[in-house]
Amino acid sequence: MKHFLNEPEKWVETDTLSRSLDLDISTVQRSVKKLHEKGILQRSQQNLDGGGYVFIYKIHSRNQIKNVILKIVQSWADRLGQELEQWENGG
Amino acid sequence: MKHFLNEPEKWVETDTLSRSLDLDISTVQRSVKKLHEKGILQRSQQNLDGGGYVFIYKIHSRNQIKNVILKIVQSWADRLGQELEQWENGG
Repeated sequence: MKHFLNEPEKWVETDTLSRSLDLDISTVQRSVKKLHEKGILQRSQQNLDGGGYVFIYKIHSRNQIKNVILKIVQSWADRLGQELEQWENGG
Repeated sequence: MKHFLNEPEKWVETDTLSRSLDLDISTVQRSVKKLHEKGILQRSQQNLDGGGYVFIYKIHSRNQIKNVILKIVQSWADRLGQELEQWENGG
């Protein structure tokens, strides 16, 4: 995550990341997958000359990340509001 | 706090609370003061026949408590939004 924040314009492969962070490739893959699912990283498919492809990742814009966070907080606040509503009505 | 939730319609003195909860009177006074400041308890002044008065406390309505909580969460979310705005603009 920190790596991506420091290099906001760079696309990177998990393989490169694994080497530069000295982390197991499966650890890196799990992490980028999660960050991609949560809308923090964008993913692109890079086709290889010999056929096949690798995924490359880059961080989303700060604006997009801000919106991801605000959306999570908003949905949490909405949920809390509903729970309190139930409690108010004697639930 | 639990005491007040269980007896939502009853006004009570700190002295009574202290005895029924078997807690030091100063502990009880500190607690009800905080809960009153935060808008959870309402306070009333009960004048004594011989002069002087004691404070009595009762919990606010669930509606009021709900609003207190939602207001805190809202101000926290607003604050987060501002911080993220700053971060977005390179702060």
